[in-house]
Amino acid sequence: MMMDDFLPEERRGVYKAIYSRRDVRAHFTSREIDDDTLLRILDAAHHAPSVGFSQPWNFIIIRDREVKARVKELFMKELERSSSMLEGERRRKYLSLKLEGIMEAPVNICVTYDPNRFGPFVIGRSSIPETGLYSVCCAIQNLWLAARAEGIGVGWVSIVDNDMLRQVLRIPEGIVPVAYLCMGYVTRFEDIPDLEREGWLSRLPLADVLYYEYWGNRYHGSVTDDAGR
Amino acid sequence: MMMDDFLPEERRGVYKAIYSRRDVRAHFTSREIDDDTLLRILDAAHHAPSVGFSQPWNFIIIRDREVKARVKELFMKELERSSSMLEGERRRKYLSLKLEGIMEAPVNICVTYDPNRFGPFVIGRSSIPETGLYSVCCAIQNLWLAARAEGIGVGWVSIVDNDMLRQVLRIPEGIVPVAYLCMGYVTRFEDIPDLEREGWLSRLPLADVLYYEYWGNRYHGSVTDDAGR
Repeated sequence: MMMDDFLPEERRGVYKAIYSRRDVRAHFTSREIDDDTLLRILDAAHHAPSVGFSQPWNFIIIRDREVKARVKELFMKELERSSSMLEGERRRKYLSLKLEGIMEAPVNICVTYDPNRFGPFVIGRSSIPETGLYSVCCAIQNLWLAARAEGIGVGWVSIVDNDMLRQVLRIPEGIVPVAYLCMGYVTRFEDIPDLEREGWLSRLPLADVLYYEYWGNRYHGSVTDDAGR
Repeated sequence: MMMDDFLPEERRGVYKAIYSRRDVRAHFTSREIDDDTLLRILDAAHHAPSVGFSQPWNFIIIRDREVKARVKELFMKELERSSSMLEGERRRKYLSLKLEGIMEAPVNICVTYDPNRFGPFVIGRSSIPETGLYSVCCAIQNLWLAARAEGIGVGWVSIVDNDMLRQVLRIPEGIVPVAYLCMGYVTRFEDIPDLEREGWLSRLPLADVLYYEYWGNRYHGSVTDDAGR
């Protein structure tokens, strides 16, 4: 028996969300995200796969400008620190990039991981402890794609010191901040990721990341560089 | 200006994939996944967000029964080991669960993380080194949802010793195995996740995982337990 329970438009929607999703730093509008929409997106995140069904995530929804401003300060500090690892033209380029939209985005969300939820024995986590964190990342990607389908952009800010972020958001010891996200309606989504468009790095051909049966054994299927779009 | 570039059917498709995706261990059919379909799904994975656009993933496609059989052995060994952490009824229940579909699924995929790709300086990774791994997990979730839209089930096997898996798949030092996935067409997707249906754990109400402005501050929006479905 063949499963074919998606209409062509529904299937197209999934690929469309995946290919047109962007890590958004600019183009946020001031339009608020209403509760129904926000909760639809967060419920989509909550329905991610999780190791042993442990659902080890929390979402801190931030709308307060004061809280955002304190996080923005952490970003500025960390940007300065990280830029010292680069020199000359590369440093100049790095500092010229728009790397966050903390204040512009009406909603910020901190996604955290709780290693103790339903523990200590979580099915599948005893062999690979990191799978708890991996589950939280799957939830983040669900959130990102659901937001995209709603016309809402999401940007992940990882230039920040997590210990200081924990203080600002009063996150207790033992809980791991995984992502700090900026969310809001946008005027547009770029066709091409920012860092690719800016010439920072190029998209790898799909064939370059595939192996067959064993590591190092190139896949010689009908791989082409533009398998998708 | 409002962004509303998804048709209702397209948006519905995204939520449908998210809510009907399952961690599949049973119901695989022997139907092969053709190259075009497999590459569409892998290209969707390849278009995940990645920290600093580092695209740090590889996908080892496994179809060989011999290779699968060796991985299955690793699973059996690790299942035995991990079951010793449980006692009595809980142990009996654990061992009765169907936790993998390695041999039944026509395609297995090992997803790996390469910390050295485009390094050492990767934008956004200098503050939080784990973001490289997080990117790989986002790719896995893209793969999972694209597969779902194609009527293909995916199961994540994490009851396995990664050092031994590395040997079987000849994965070099420095490359991190992140996920071992079983993929194939299925006769059906369960309505409810296996571990929830089996009474192992329950789905948390969405409200239980939300906070507002700070950790510990409950969100009093229009949260309901069935915000989605």
